[in-house]
Amino acid sequence: MVLLVKKTVRFLPYDVVLEVDEGANLLHAAMEAGVHINASCGGEGVCGKCKIILESGELSSQRGATQTEEEWRLGFRLACQSQVVSDLVVRIPPESLFDKRLLRQKPPAARLRPLPFDAHELREAGKYDPAFQKKFLQLPPPTLSDNICDLRRLREGIKKQHRLDNITVDFFLTRKLAEALRQENFAVTATLDFAQRRSRKPRLVRVEPGDSTGRHFAIAIDIGTTTVWGQLLDLTSGDILDSLGEYNGQISYGEDVISRIIYASKPEGLQRLQGVVVKTINSVIKALLKKSKLTTEDISHLTLAANTTMTHLFLGVDPKYIRLAPYVPTLCAVPPVRARDLGLDLAEHVYIYCLSNVSSYVGGDIVSGVLGSGMYQESKLTLYIDIGTNGEIVVGNQDWMVCAACSAGPAFEGGGIRFGMRATQGAVEDISINPDTAEPMLMTIGMVKPKGICGSGLINILAALMETGLIDPKGKFRDDLESSRIREGESGREYVLAYAPETQVDQDIVLSEVDIDNLMRAKGAMYAGYITLLESVGLTIHDLEQIILAGAFGSFINIENAITIGLLPDLPRDKFTYVGNGSLLGATMVAFSRQMLEEERRVALMMTNFELSETPGFMDRYMAALFLPHTQAEYFPTVMKRLEGVRRRHS
Amino acid sequence: MVLLVKKTVRFLPYDVVLEVDEGANLLHAAMEAGVHINASCGGEGVCGKCKIILESGELSSQRGATQTEEEWRLGFRLACQSQVVSDLVVRIPPESLFDKRLLRQKPPAARLRPLPFDAHELREAGKYDPAFQKKFLQLPPPTLSDNICDLRRLREGIKKQHRLDNITVDFFLTRKLAEALRQENFAVTATLDFAQRRSRKPRLVRVEPGDSTGRHFAIAIDIGTTTVWGQLLDLTSGDILDSLGEYNGQISYGEDVISRIIYASKPEGLQRLQGVVVKTINSVIKALLKKSKLTTEDISHLTLAANTTMTHLFLGVDPKYIRLAPYVPTLCAVPPVRARDLGLDLAEHVYIYCLSNVSSYVGGDIVSGVLGSGMYQESKLTLYIDIGTNGEIVVGNQDWMVCAACSAGPAFEGGGIRFGMRATQGAVEDISINPDTAEPMLMTIGMVKPKGICGSGLINILAALMETGLIDPKGKFRDDLESSRIREGESGREYVLAYAPETQVDQDIVLSEVDIDNLMRAKGAMYAGYITLLESVGLTIHDLEQIILAGAFGSFINIENAITIGLLPDLPRDKFTYVGNGSLLGATMVAFSRQMLEEERRVALMMTNFELSETPGFMDRYMAALFLPHTQAEYFPTVMKRLEGVRRRHS
Repeated sequence: MVLLVKKTVRFLPYDVVLEVDEGANLLHAAMEAGVHINASCGGEGVCGKCKIILESGELSSQRGATQTEEEWRLGFRLACQSQVVSDLVVRIPPESLFDKRLLRQKPPAARLRPLPFDAHELREAGKYDPAFQKKFLQLPPPTLSDNICDLRRLREGIKKQHRLDNITVDFFLTRKLAEALRQENFAVTATLDFAQRRSRKPRLVRVEPGDSTGRHFAIAIDIGTTTVWGQLLDLTSGDILDSLGEYNGQISYGEDVISRIIYASKPEGLQRLQGVVVKTINSVIKALLKKSKLTTEDISHLTLAANTTMTHLFLGVDPKYIRLAPYVPTLCAVPPVRARDLGLDLAEHVYIYCLSNVSSYVGGDIVSGVLGSGMYQESKLTLYIDIGTNGEIVVGNQDWMVCAACSAGPAFEGGGIRFGMRATQGAVEDISINPDTAEPMLMTIGMVKPKGICGSGLINILAALMETGLIDPKGKFRDDLESSRIREGESGREYVLAYAPETQVDQDIVLSEVDIDNLMRAKGAMYAGYITLLESVGLTIHDLEQIILAGAFGSFINIENAITIGLLPDLPRDKFTYVGNGSLLGATMVAFSRQMLEEERRVALMMTNFELSETPGFMDRYMAALFLPHTQAEYFPTVMKRLEGVRRRHS
Repeated sequence: MVLLVKKTVRFLPYDVVLEVDEGANLLHAAMEAGVHINASCGGEGVCGKCKIILESGELSSQRGATQTEEEWRLGFRLACQSQVVSDLVVRIPPESLFDKRLLRQKPPAARLRPLPFDAHELREAGKYDPAFQKKFLQLPPPTLSDNICDLRRLREGIKKQHRLDNITVDFFLTRKLAEALRQENFAVTATLDFAQRRSRKPRLVRVEPGDSTGRHFAIAIDIGTTTVWGQLLDLTSGDILDSLGEYNGQISYGEDVISRIIYASKPEGLQRLQGVVVKTINSVIKALLKKSKLTTEDISHLTLAANTTMTHLFLGVDPKYIRLAPYVPTLCAVPPVRARDLGLDLAEHVYIYCLSNVSSYVGGDIVSGVLGSGMYQESKLTLYIDIGTNGEIVVGNQDWMVCAACSAGPAFEGGGIRFGMRATQGAVEDISINPDTAEPMLMTIGMVKPKGICGSGLINILAALMETGLIDPKGKFRDDLESSRIREGESGREYVLAYAPETQVDQDIVLSEVDIDNLMRAKGAMYAGYITLLESVGLTIHDLEQIILAGAFGSFINIENAITIGLLPDLPRDKFTYVGNGSLLGATMVAFSRQMLEEERRVALMMTNFELSETPGFMDRYMAALFLPHTQAEYFPTVMKRLEGVRRRHS
């Protein structure tokens, strides 16, 4: 474990002090402290704008290409090219300064929600119960007067030594049984499946020579439309040994579920999509096994969660009717299916346990998150949100749940936004804007020259434009600004985040009013969704006791900014938590917990689905939400209060 | 239906009258009437020996190559080349005559045992219950306010319309479900599997558009070491639509189970043997479907019975330990396995239901016969016999059963007998011998020139040799005979059944003392087996209330002759019945009857296995049985009485 040494950085003239890790990037530190420094190139050191003056202490810096020797001697450094070595005092030069009244420390990110399931805790309480368990057996070797068949000898041993009667046997183990029994003179380890999805009887799935009760593994898979994630699980210890993700091979056939459904209807289209996602999963499994030096035989169990369309495609079931009114999926609860039958490189006895879907657009990924987050067993009224092309919303608690999908559109995934992109290297992910000069301070993923803007970046930019008063509540740019950053573009007015030379794309990266319109529609659909669902059960936003954000997006989102633009409700910030990849989380939990595996179908059936387009009032609420933050200011009291200053400035 | 007209044939000088069908072969008729006519060429018309004189009436005859025109004019005809046209009087010429005292009418063959399961009768009583049933459903089409998934709609329909809750679903049907539902506007037929082998829940396996409740089929398979038999079953009517057999492709890899086990231990040997038997079964299935114009999709169910080694090889499980002491099979009760997983060309939802084995040498074929014959549910003390290389014996009734396999050797299948062969065209199957001249009257299968001798032929020849006194109770030929038919051969004395020119093999076909020794060992092992098993439960031969013969061999066997040689016990002939292919019979029964399908494992467990080689006294009883009919004459009272005449003649 690396011991991180803390250093303090004092930013002048604001006199803001921040404690950071030794070696921290100074531009990052400034952004975190809410200190604005102009910076257009995302942190790559080419725009030369993020100059600061080192007044005392030590920085490890690279001299920028645009810097003179004289500047260097006078203590000018590029913040993006500087790492903190000692306690520091740095001064922001005048061209980066802005009105101190708007300064605010960046709020802490939402808390990571504690898991409802702690294997170690449960193990101590004797309650840890993965559905798959290993049992050691010492059987009497056969003789001429006791020559019953191997399988019966095994069954009788299990009955006598573990009091398990009436088990079923997976056919395939019989092919290796005779040798497994004889290798260590009839001392064997039996793997039993106690999941009761198919039968009330435990299922014997594997027999190994000797005592291997200490080695027992499972894999959990989340098939996202974009990324397939896998986790390697140690069923003995309850540890997650490894996680990794790969792009879903289906991406080449369409970015979103609708385009995949259309592709699937072409000749051989379904087979091809099924094949490529299986290939991706196999690649994930292979990589997980390789890193841990395990073989496919070591894996007893595969659990899997995905949205409804991904589930259908993975199973080779045509998702055609998901897209056509009245939006009927073929299956929600997935019958057990052997991994091999779908082409997965796992042992012959491994069945796939898929999380159930609720409806065409509320899938197993959401049920998985509801399960994994523990929401389904709490009394608190909860809002569970997964923001993506289809934002899924669940409201409820242990007693009832309602859910819906909002056609938010792909804006938060970069779709429909001119410079929108996925959250990969070069995506603008954070921003600060000087309200006087409109100069930005950009942070990109990987601190390289910007290529575009990712979803969380879009939220942060929109919030910054609102907070600096550069746009009005309708999302239109003020026309009285003198900054060259705001200009008339091809599709209306636009804000220039970075000029061509500072980018990787050789053109100015901008956010236009058309982009902002799309963002407002996306966030408006989500917000209208919450309200509609809540009102359908006679509740309001203020009844919510907690909000859980799911999805990769949910973990990177700046809660404060998301509230500012009206994407998330304006509720006390400590009610917000995030669970990361809820889909993978749930798939992992059901692998560790037989009880959760048994309950997932019940949980899915608990979740009453609303078709928002068919729900009275949704359209009105959607129209009302096409405003920044919202036409009904009373929904966003803290935002309105903060924006008051802006309004005053411009009035 | 062809109406057969009966004609009478009067044989002079014996004055025996027989009623036969119009068109019957005259040599056949004579054999059936117990009338001896010399005949060496099996009925092909080349030896010219089976001359008779037509005294009145009409025969349709071919003139033989050896017959002069004069003979023909005088009414000489070859019996084997003559068909009965009208009522007849025929005279046997002096060279074919023998002592009338030994004449006896050929006893009627054993009765075919009535089936314990009559689908039509049961259907009328409302008790016909194949495990697979079809149910018609009219589901409400989905709407926006009722857009649950297709599978749930189906489940709810089954629950409401057929009161079946808590079913499991075979994964593969989901791939065709959406279209099946929509093709006839949500009117569908669901196929359900009520077999409870895997679970207590009915399993939904197929959904077809519209009402197809009238079309429902299954296949039963018997894998014999030599032949694979299949039956196509109509589950709606309970009819057997078709039966056919093909040679087991494994024959090229060894004639008996032991040689197959040895082959399986070679590299890729097991895979090859598995592959070729699957190929044979696929060929049988294909032929059955083709003849009935069905597709693989029409088959819901496959039931299968085979001996223990054949079961292992079919499943791809190495039978190695079956052959090695202490003779342990890997599995007796076979876990359900999908037909596709073994390479069978059937629909994806079809599982194979294998009849359970009892031990290494009492297999699913015997359990199947015990089940199919109904023996397991009768109070009568029964002896069930399947004679083959391994003769299997079961003794018992509804309350208890003991069983064993005798290593009878392959004699009855032609193995170890110089001119032994399978029961195919050209095999001598019946004989009559003139005790004075030792001239034979041969009948071959297909009435062609003889190639060899099949199992039932061997029994009949041995009995004829005993009854004519040509051999003594030790199986040695009398040395005081003047017939050229008995001579010194390569391996001791031998009886010439046919001289080279009368055969297909260009050499004399003989039965030698070495052959007779082998036959005595085979029949002795069987008889010692009955006695040993009976004595193990404190009973004797005389306690037996019925004897059931199984196997193709069992149906062709001449009971009287088999008793004469001491293969079958000398009990009242009306206690003998046969069931034909008991293995196929049981497999068919379990396809028609869910109750029998559920019970077969219990029946297999009821059957206590004895290893005869390990059972005290077996060896002594075996030695005592190496005599014709037996050293203890009191076991064979009727035989001894009949043979008295012979003994008197020769004393």
